Amino acid sequence: MAISTIGFDADDTLWQNETFFRLTEQRFAELLSEHGEHQVISARLLEAERRNLAFYGYGVKGFTLSMIETAVEVTNGQVSASVIGEILSFGRQMLQNPVEALPHAEETLAALSGRYNIVLITKGDLFDQERKLAQSGLGAYFNAVEIVSDKSADTYARIFSRHGDGPERAVMVGNSLKSDVVPAIRAGSWGVYVPHELTWVLEHEDAPEGDPRFRRIESLAELPALIAQMT
Amino acid sequence: MAISTIGFDADDTLWQNETFFRLTEQRFAELLSEHGEHQVISARLLEAERRNLAFYGYGVKGFTLSMIETAVEVTNGQVSASVIGEILSFGRQMLQNPVEALPHAEETLAALSGRYNIVLITKGDLFDQERKLAQSGLGAYFNAVEIVSDKSADTYARIFSRHGDGPERAVMVGNSLKSDVVPAIRAGSWGVYVPHELTWVLEHEDAPEGDPRFRRIESLAELPALIAQMT
Repeated sequence: MAISTIGFDADDTLWQNETFFRLTEQRFAELLSEHGEHQVISARLLEAERRNLAFYGYGVKGFTLSMIETAVEVTNGQVSASVIGEILSFGRQMLQNPVEALPHAEETLAALSGRYNIVLITKGDLFDQERKLAQSGLGAYFNAVEIVSDKSADTYARIFSRHGDGPERAVMVGNSLKSDVVPAIRAGSWGVYVPHELTWVLEHEDAPEGDPRFRRIESLAELPALIAQMT
Repeated sequence: MAISTIGFDADDTLWQNETFFRLTEQRFAELLSEHGEHQVISARLLEAERRNLAFYGYGVKGFTLSMIETAVEVTNGQVSASVIGEILSFGRQMLQNPVEALPHAEETLAALSGRYNIVLITKGDLFDQERKLAQSGLGAYFNAVEIVSDKSADTYARIFSRHGDGPERAVMVGNSLKSDVVPAIRAGSWGVYVPHELTWVLEHEDAPEGDPRFRRIESLAELPALIAQMT
């Protein structure tokens, strides 16, 4: 069946994101360096994030709350108010980071738009994702934008039915095997993996090598030719 | 033109919400009572919330971050880590509060569903609003759910075009004049105000008395008869 719809992940597929989390994590570990090695602080933070995912979901606000919680923990309840204030300001800075489109993002969207339904499918804080999309200047390329709390096979089946001709005629493109590629393939779509050098450890998953609807490209620039082959 | 679509606000229209914020605010003020009168602490918190709205948007996570910021401020940077830990746990408790449907919510939705497009239109944290909808047991009554970052006239024009026959044939029902009623009327829809005894001060606005598309009812139980009159 001919491809009619292309879903794009946003963070680290169309614009930088994880790098801001990593930089903040680094500043956070430095701030608490008298209470533990960088690696130890980072590991405690990751534990907090994992534990809190069921309460906070994805995004900067939950990350900030997890940093604060970790600061209370690793200092054995001795963290100073000024450190808490610093962490709050790290969070606010992340929410104001400039949005940098990744190489080839715009030219690829421009090449595909008009010929396919183009849908942005992203998770995270609703408010922050809308801000980033607006600042990216890429908004006009999308026929629809779906900001979701999580990305499961059901999510893709629903979105590709709503904005396209069903999952079988759709391709999902993203840097997360776990959130973008594998669940889309499970929904009956194609999954195109575009690795990013930084991917959050909670997004790691094995590539579904050998699956007939799995593809991997090194750059978004390869996408239009790949889609043309599929169609 | 006959009404075809009804939008419902969720928080304090279909289920209790503000009461949980007020209870938490009370516990917060008690926690910091040695640093100021309840009223003063509450006023400082409100200032922080207002200031942070542009960064955090609406919802429990932003509220928690604003409480932490206020605690740092009102203690002149002397807040203890145990107080910070308490505030984090207030936030997590809010995110687990049971969802209580308001009187007549379910019977009203049941009476209207099938005869109109019923759309839930709510703002706040995506993840938390989805949780509350799932727990409310009301999900099956909605033809569509839109969780938005803010509620402007544009929001209603877009949603009622997407899920109905345009804003002119739609009614928006909610407890916030500022977010539910006034912008919907501005978009060309009808606005039905169902006051709730608790409404956040940042949601206050004058009623558009005299506007031909403004209605006020004391209870959701009056809604089906009101809509039948409009149609």
